[in-house]
Amino acid sequence: MPKEVKSIPDGYHSVTPYLIIDGGRANDALDFYTRAFGATTLSRIDAPDGSVVAQLSIGQSNFWLADESAPHQSFSPQTLGGSTTRMILITDDPHAAFDRAVAAGASSVCPVRDEDYGWRIGRVVDPFGHHWEIGKPL
Amino acid sequence: MPKEVKSIPDGYHSVTPYLIIDGGRANDALDFYTRAFGATTLSRIDAPDGSVVAQLSIGQSNFWLADESAPHQSFSPQTLGGSTTRMILITDDPHAAFDRAVAAGASSVCPVRDEDYGWRIGRVVDPFGHHWEIGKPL
Repeated sequence: MPKEVKSIPDGYHSVTPYLIIDGGRANDALDFYTRAFGATTLSRIDAPDGSVVAQLSIGQSNFWLADESAPHQSFSPQTLGGSTTRMILITDDPHAAFDRAVAAGASSVCPVRDEDYGWRIGRVVDPFGHHWEIGKPL
Repeated sequence: MPKEVKSIPDGYHSVTPYLIIDGGRANDALDFYTRAFGATTLSRIDAPDGSVVAQLSIGQSNFWLADESAPHQSFSPQTLGGSTTRMILITDDPHAAFDRAVAAGASSVCPVRDEDYGWRIGRVVDPFGHHWEIGKPL
């Protein structure tokens, strides 16, 4: 382990993704991730312009989300026409988690199935254009 | 914590980002993240078509990278003209980590400085178009 990552404050992780949300919908995304994936909001900042930055957790992992801001080179999947990073969500029961995400408003990309590479996994795209693979190693 | 994320196999995390790399350069990206951030390669799959999927770790966090594949809706920042997810890298010494990343080939977006919101943090874009904020809470 390199010297510069030997000490991380409690509750933080070495690497944490930060998802960009279109159209001032960061608050909607926070609600969606709560309903779809059981995420918990750890912190939330509401800026004077109405934009939102929030830190969420799922299980022992954290992620951030924020409203799009072109001056800050923060682009949403809706604006760019695709996403440049997928999120892998590991769960005990991929079928149940997949169904819950779709019920909350995600769209199925690939249904959950047992893949040759040893995972039970499926994929959804959320209403904000971010792709989530939902599964577990078998 | 929701029922479906109560049990995660050893070495896995609830949520793990998966970065898409342009132009068949996943192998170059793996080399870059090793030099720039001290990443360790946990696993690597070389497909018959020459494409690469690899799992890396930095500190106690993991992430994946893979070559772009339009049929799989996997788009690189170079192809889309921006990135839809940033990565937050927490480190003991943000100045040293930032300088190391730039020496390895990243470009400075914002130099490291102490921000009003209580972080010492800067930002680079790597040669593959992914943005990394490098810092620590103060």
